[in-house]
Parts: sequence; structure tokens; C-alpha cells
Amino acid sequence: MADKIRVTVWNEFRHEKNNDAVKKVYPDGMHVVIAKALAAQPDIETRTATLDEPEHGLTEEVLAATDVLTWWGHTAHGEVEDEIVTRVQTRVLEGMGLIVLHSGHFSKIFRKLMGTNCSLKWREAAEKERLWNLEPGHPITEGIGEYFELPNVEMYGERFDIPTPDKVIFVSWFEGGEVFRSGCCFERGHGHIFYFRPGHETFPIYYNEDVQRVLVNAVRWARARVALTDACPNVKSIEPIEPKEVDFGKAGKAGTAPQ
Amino acid sequence: MADKIRVTVWNEFRHEKNNDAVKKVYPDGMHVVIAKALAAQPDIETRTATLDEPEHGLTEEVLAATDVLTWWGHTAHGEVEDEIVTRVQTRVLEGMGLIVLHSGHFSKIFRKLMGTNCSLKWREAAEKERLWNLEPGHPITEGIGEYFELPNVEMYGERFDIPTPDKVIFVSWFEGGEVFRSGCCFERGHGHIFYFRPGHETFPIYYNEDVQRVLVNAVRWARARVALTDACPNVKSIEPIEPKEVDFGKAGKAGTAPQ
Amino acid sequence: MADKIRVTVWNEFRHEKNNDAVKKVYPDGMHVVIAKALAAQPDIETRTATLDEPEHGLTEEVLAATDVLTWWGHTAHGEVEDEIVTRVQTRVLEGMGLIVLHSGHFSKIFRKLMGTNCSLKWREAAEKERLWNLEPGHPITEGIGEYFELPNVEMYGERFDIPTPDKVIFVSWFEGGEVFRSGCCFERGHGHIFYFRPGHETFPIYYNEDVQRVLVNAVRWARARVALTDACPNVKSIEPIEPKEVDFGKAGKAGTAPQ
Amino acid sequence: MADKIRVTVWNEFRHEKNNDAVKKVYPDGMHVVIAKALAAQPDIETRTATLDEPEHGLTEEVLAATDVLTWWGHTAHGEVEDEIVTRVQTRVLEGMGLIVLHSGHFSKIFRKLMGTNCSLKWREAAEKERLWNLEPGHPITEGIGEYFELPNVEMYGERFDIPTPDKVIFVSWFEGGEVFRSGCCFERGHGHIFYFRPGHETFPIYYNEDVQRVLVNAVRWARARVALTDACPNVKSIEPIEPKEVDFGKAGKAGTAPQ
Repeated sequence: MADKIRVTVWNEFRHEKNNDAVKKVYPDGMHVVIAKALAAQPDIETRTATLDEPEHGLTEEVLAATDVLTWWGHTAHGEVEDEIVTRVQTRVLEGMGLIVLHSGHFSKIFRKLMGTNCSLKWREAAEKERLWNLEPGHPITEGIGEYFELPNVEMYGERFDIPTPDKVIFVSWFEGGEVFRSGCCFERGHGHIFYFRPGHETFPIYYNEDVQRVLVNAVRWARARVALTDACPNVKSIEPIEPKEVDFGKAGKAGTAPQ
Repeated sequence: MADKIRVTVWNEFRHEKNNDAVKKVYPDGMHVVIAKALAAQPDIETRTATLDEPEHGLTEEVLAATDVLTWWGHTAHGEVEDEIVTRVQTRVLEGMGLIVLHSGHFSKIFRKLMGTNCSLKWREAAEKERLWNLEPGHPITEGIGEYFELPNVEMYGERFDIPTPDKVIFVSWFEGGEVFRSGCCFERGHGHIFYFRPGHETFPIYYNEDVQRVLVNAVRWARARVALTDACPNVKSIEPIEPKEVDFGKAGKAGTAPQ
Repeated sequence: MADKIRVTVWNEFRHEKNNDAVKKVYPDGMHVVIAKALAAQPDIETRTATLDEPEHGLTEEVLAATDVLTWWGHTAHGEVEDEIVTRVQTRVLEGMGLIVLHSGHFSKIFRKLMGTNCSLKWREAAEKERLWNLEPGHPITEGIGEYFELPNVEMYGERFDIPTPDKVIFVSWFEGGEVFRSGCCFERGHGHIFYFRPGHETFPIYYNEDVQRVLVNAVRWARARVALTDACPNVKSIEPIEPKEVDFGKAGKAGTAPQ
Repeated sequence: MADKIRVTVWNEFRHEKNNDAVKKVYPDGMHVVIAKALAAQPDIETRTATLDEPEHGLTEEVLAATDVLTWWGHTAHGEVEDEIVTRVQTRVLEGMGLIVLHSGHFSKIFRKLMGTNCSLKWREAAEKERLWNLEPGHPITEGIGEYFELPNVEMYGERFDIPTPDKVIFVSWFEGGEVFRSGCCFERGHGHIFYFRPGHETFPIYYNEDVQRVLVNAVRWARARVALTDACPNVKSIEPIEPKEVDFGKAGKAGTAPQ
């Protein structure tokens, strides 16, 4: 049998300690709930890592042994060290999968990989969200029907400032009148990236069965298949190159080459 | 008549001062040759900016008055200040066009906007390059035939570590046996980005008529049409939202909500 | 001054003649209202063509003199002759723009150019639609704000069976709970194609100011810039090819070439 | 263990019967060589089908039991019945994979799924081709290095008139001076499509080990995961829709609604 997919579930893990409302929903931290949901699958094994651990729990060793990293951050994006962000980016480009959750849209790592601002509209009004499945044949929607609903969510609305995704998997309808590209696939370097909108610190989103199913599917889709480091080598020619003087006159035939 | 397109031609402008072979080809700097070719068009006006000017010549005022920025860097990418790079990125996301030339593939600004490594293979052997035009109906290839040739070039070979471009305009054939995606269109935020491979400090590439024509076309394609700053606003709902208690049980119907 | 953009507004023009409710809204036919809105612009000139004219009004001459074709069909898609559909496809591939409206999603020409089924969900309940502008810097949304609303529409819901668009311009929110990619850009051959969802035969959609503005913008975006016919030529080599015997053994080194 | 992937290898199978040079390379037909290479894998089972069988060997039953169809055609594209082409298209949109080989670029099924002309340049001069691997982390290039070579090929050159591929896997360098996008991924409906350039009737391309490896990989990538038929249903609303008179005045606020 194939080796298990090794997932590292990363969590900022701050408001679960500081805020009673959050603590009530995620008493051991959101990462524990997510990791448990993933590890319930026979082909997935998990570890967790959090902001306040040394190197944020993301040492070279941990990342080298990670096939997919999931990322939740919210109030402390600025405290993630740039060196660790670059380390994670490097691993993604080499092939590690990355699943960015909800408020992770504003994390350093997501913005660094997208190259854009990643801004959006938002509102906390406990409204209803309906996620429409645009790609029922895609691995990420296996077992998901035409749509699924979340009864109480924080709203995220367009325009979401991201590069055009390779594939938009879910588009959300919100009770308050907005829409959002809630499941977006990207490839960067050799790594697969999935942005998944659902999530919140006081609404129990990560206990939801459909959300958990999407996370499991996304882990399988994003799992690292290679670990390739792209260098910038000076190479020899394969075919013979005819020796010749550089012909400034010819190259500059349409302009005027300087004397 | 419409206002002219305001182009700022940026150049590292180092080896033209330090290296006699480069100085011979570009005695006043590469930026002067590029700017002159662009400014020969009735709808384009240019200014130049270089690394060793204060703020690299890219003050807030200059960028605010720039519709398209062209970028050449080679040996001193690391000396471009991060603050200026972020400033340029912000302007691109707001709508300013960016044309990245040759060794600019490894510039901070291009890598920041792409989110990838932007590595490639390279070789200096004065070999022949033939750029095939894959998009003869695209504005960037106006006036360009099925292909054009450069007699003596530095080779760049695949794999070019970039996100899948929105459009590949040119693919190069090299005498030594490689291929390369030599003209690539991207959109990031509201800005248009064109990567154009041709260029070198001792081969007189920017005097070439076809290269100049592509640069002019690319400037027109990439010109800023808007200046939009994306924020992340907290918004009110448009539709009424039914007041309701957060139903932890319902949201967590498939899992087990914590007590 | 540049030549005007020549638009041919095509309409099935059946229910305006057969159905009193439709006749009341579009007494002279929907094409007349659309053409009038477009022709009000100084840079656009229009003609109209309808199903029951000879060759559906789309002769070789008319198409050769058309920069952008707009297409409305609804109840008589099957009556459009295949030969004319192929003629229109050929012109699109050569560079003519095509704007497909509302129920035109099921027209022969749109399905032929997409290669897919182009199916969707629908409902007539006079509900509200809000079109969110995902690309405020795109030429098609010039003058359009963050969203615009239509008070009474026929709903179209996902999944819309189309190839992934090059760019999704609008996503609609519907009162009844669905979402839809309501403005989609494609390129096929050398032609630009825009699918625009709004439209109906009894709701007065094409009198709406925002809808008209989008149509004008789309015409400008889609206008033909070239007229290129792609052939499949047998070509001579540019570089010398070394004469050699076909080496079956070498080519088949990994398999076993037959004797 | 998972069920095997069921591949139907389709071949026009004409010139192997009529032409001695072809017969010498593929005495039992090209399909037999391809099918044998695929069936050597433990997870793949094959059947073959050819043009001159009833229904071209592609009955409803055969297609329903096919996860991936490979297609070779060359001199008799016009003899493939439109009804069968539509049947194959329907199955691809439902989820069946399709691998189009070499001269299949001009097959009815490929052109129908692409919506474009699919033309290209070509030359038979037994020249060398080098296929550069642009996506070393993609499943289709598993086991393939930076490039592979074919010593004697028919050349295909750009511009290849296809919609922009989702992913370009290989770009070819040709001895005679051209380039080509030789491995292209598309998704249409729920089906995965891979166009693979290598192939010829007298050069023994399908005996080549690297070509066979790519075919095996492509079969695994393209295998049907779903069988979904998209209909165009009239649906009820999920959310309540406020009953209201159609407000012609409001909808037409910016124009003038007819009386």
C-alpha cells in the first residue's frame, strides 16, 4: 500500500487561548479539530504546528516530511517571520501542497505565492452561505452534491484580489447579497494550492461534515508528488552552434548600431 | 486626441559604466536606446530612471505619473530596496503596466508578482534565436510576421518557473537545441504584465527593429486604464439578514460540536 | 479618425411577432433596441439581421463587413442552418468578435465554438439579480460600479457547462438562491467571444442603462483587429536537415521494432 | 484493489492495410502496438476499435465501458460518421478521457471539442525532434527527464490553432527550425483531454519507450472519475422570492421603455 499523505495542520492558535467565545467552540484549538477530521481517513496522517512554537513549528525537518500544509491565521499574520514564510514558499514551489483557510487569505504565505493583495469585502452577521459546486467531476468535490450550505458564517465578498485561478471549484451565495469564489485551485512551481473560504473562530465551521469532506479531498488533490528544486543553471548546448562573429550590423539592421 | 502613454524606462545602468564591451554597444545606457525607440511613436512619451538615483528614480510622484514601467536589471537585483519593490508592486496592482526584459526575470519585482522562483537555463554562445509568433491576432504582435530572428543571443531555456501565463505570445527556437516561452502575458490586480525575453548587454538586441516593434506594441497593450486601490472593507448587507441564534448543532450536524 | 466598428445585431425575431407579451416590450424586435443603443455611440455603426431573411441575413458579404456580431436566439436554435453556423464560426476564428446574449447559450454557434453542452439551470420567477463586477479594470466594465442590479429576471444557475473562461467578468447573485458566471470572455482562433447573461423577451432588460453600457464596452473589446485564415501548409525547413536513413532500431530502442 | 482503467484504442487502420511501408512498421495495425504497450501495465486493460467496424467499433456499450479513448486518424477523418462523433463527444463531456494522437489534430472529434480549426504547419523530412518537459511535476511526465528525443519525425509547427490549453506539458524543438506545443491538457465538461503530438505511420514512434511512458501516464491522468450528464433543468427557488409586479419602468430606468 502507498505511504500515507503526511499533513501538517498549522494554526495561529491565539484566539482560542485569549477569547472565551472562541475557546468554547475550539477548546483545544482549531488545528486539533481539523487534524482529527483528516486523520480519520486511512490514507492520511497528521501533525500540528502553531505560531508560538520555535520556528512556528515549521522547521526544515517538519516541512521536508510534509506532503500538504494547511494554514489558518487571522489576527497575527504580521508575527509570522519572513524567513519561515520563504521556507514554506520554497517547499510549495518544490511540490508540497498548501491549503489556505478562510482568513488565511491575508497571510504572508498566500500573498507571497499569489503576488497580489488578496483583499476582499467582509461582514460578520451570522448569515447563511450556500456554496455552489461548479466542478462536480473534480477530485475536490467528490461526495459533494450540487451545493452545500452553512447556516451561520462570516461573509466574504468579491472582488477577491487574486490572479485568475486555474479552476474555480465553489462560488458562494450569501444571504446578505454578495457572491465569492470560495474554492480556488492554483499551481505554483510544482506545488498545488487550494484556497477554501469556509471557516471562522466562533462559528463551528470545521465541525461541518461537508467542510471536512472538502478538506480531505483537497489534501488528496494537493499532496506532493515530487520534490524538485529549480535552479538557474548555465548549460552546454545540445546541438552544435556555428562559430561566428557577432554581427552588430545585422542585429541592428533596423536601427542604427552605435560605433 | 487622447493623452500620450507615459512610460518610465528603468535600467540598472551599471555594466554600461563598468564594462567596456557593454559601453561600446550602449554608450549612454540601455535605457536611452529603449526610451528613444518608444518615444519615436506619436502616442508615447518617456522618462528614464536608474538604480543609482535617489529612490532608484521611482518616487511616488514618478510612479503616479507612469502608465507603463519597463524593467531591465541584471547584476544588481539585490540592491533594489524592498520598499521600492513594494511600491512598484502596489502600482502594478492598481493598474500600471509592467514590461519585464530579459534578465529581469530574476528581478525582485517580477518574482514578487509571480510568486515563483522564475529560474531558467542559460548559455552565452552568440547563437541564433527564432521567435515564433503564436498569437498573430494579439495587439503585441501587430506588424510581426510568423516569426522573427535574432542572429546572436544569450540562450534562455525551459523550464521557466513561472505561473501558467494567461497567454504565451512567442516561443523561441535556439540553435543549440532549447526552446523558451519568450513572450508571456499576465494580469495581476488591475495591471498588465508582459515578460519579453530578448535582450542582452553586449548583443545589440534593443536596436533590432522587430524587438522595438514588440516593445511599442507591449506598451500599448499594458498601459494603465485604471488606478484602483483594493482595500478590505467591512461592508453592510444589501439584502436583509434574518436575525437568528447561531445554531451550533446544525452547523456541526455531521461532526460533534463541543460542549 | 479610425473607422467605426461595424456591428451586426442578429436576432431570431420570432416571439416578437408571435407573442403579444413580447411584442409589447419589443414592438420592432429586440435587435432594433440593441442596435439603437449601440449606434448611439460615435465609434459604432450597426446593421441588423434576422433568422427569416435569406441566409439568415448572414451572407458572406455581410460577415466580411462585420467586426462584431451579437447573437440572440431562443426558441428556434434548430432552424439556423448548419452551413451558416460554420460560416460564422470561420469568421470568428479569423478574428470577428462575437457577443452571445442570454438564451444564446444554447445556440448552435456558441456550442460549436465552446465544444461543450452549454447547459445550465433556469427559472422564470421575475426575481432580482445582482451582477458583481469581478474585473473593475477590464474594458468591458468601464463605467460599471461594484455591481449593478436587474429587478426582474429569468434566473440562470450553475453549473454552466462551458470551458473555463479566460476571464470571468461578472458573477450574479439571484434572489432565489443561485449564482452564475454572467459575463465570460473567451478567445477562439483570432476572435474574441463574450457571453453576457442578461436578457429576456418579456423583461425589458435591453433598455437597462448598465446592460447597454456593458454591450457597448463588449463591442469595443471584441472588435476584429485582424482577418487571418489559418491553413495547414506543408512547409520547407528553415534550418538545414541532416540527410539520414530512418533508424528504426534507434527510434524503437526501448520497444522492439518489427522486422 | 481498484478496478483497472478500461482503455479503448481507436485506429483508422487504413494505411497499415494499403501501404507497404506502413505495413512494415505496423503489420497488425498501430492500435495493436499502442494497446500492447498500455496493457503491459497492471492497472490498465485495453480493447481496440477501428473505422471499418460497424459503428466504427464505438457502440454505446463500448463507450459506456471505456474510461479513456485514444484516437489515431489520418487519411479518412471525413469517413467518421457525425453521429458517432457526437456520441464520443457526449461521453467525453460526461467524464471519459480522450487522448488525441498526432494527425488526430484534424479529426472531427478533436475539432468538435476544441471549437477551432486545429490547423498547423507540417513537413516530412525525417528530422530530429526534442520534446522539452515544461511540467516535471505533472502526472503525465512521471519518469520523463528534462527532455526526450525522437530521431526521425514528421514536423508539426506553430501556429497550432487551439484554444489556450489549461496546461502545456511539452514544447518541441525541431531540427528544421520550428517549435510546437506537443503535449496539451484540456478539460471539457467533466472529461480530460490530452493532445500528444508524436506519432507517424512509417516512423516507429509508438515503439519508443518515452512515448509509451507518456501514453501510460496520460491514460492514468485522463481516466474517467465520474459519468455525469448535464441537463438544462427548470428549477424551483431555494430562497423565497418576493412576489412583485414586473416593473418595466424600473428596469428600463435608464432607457425608455416602449408603450
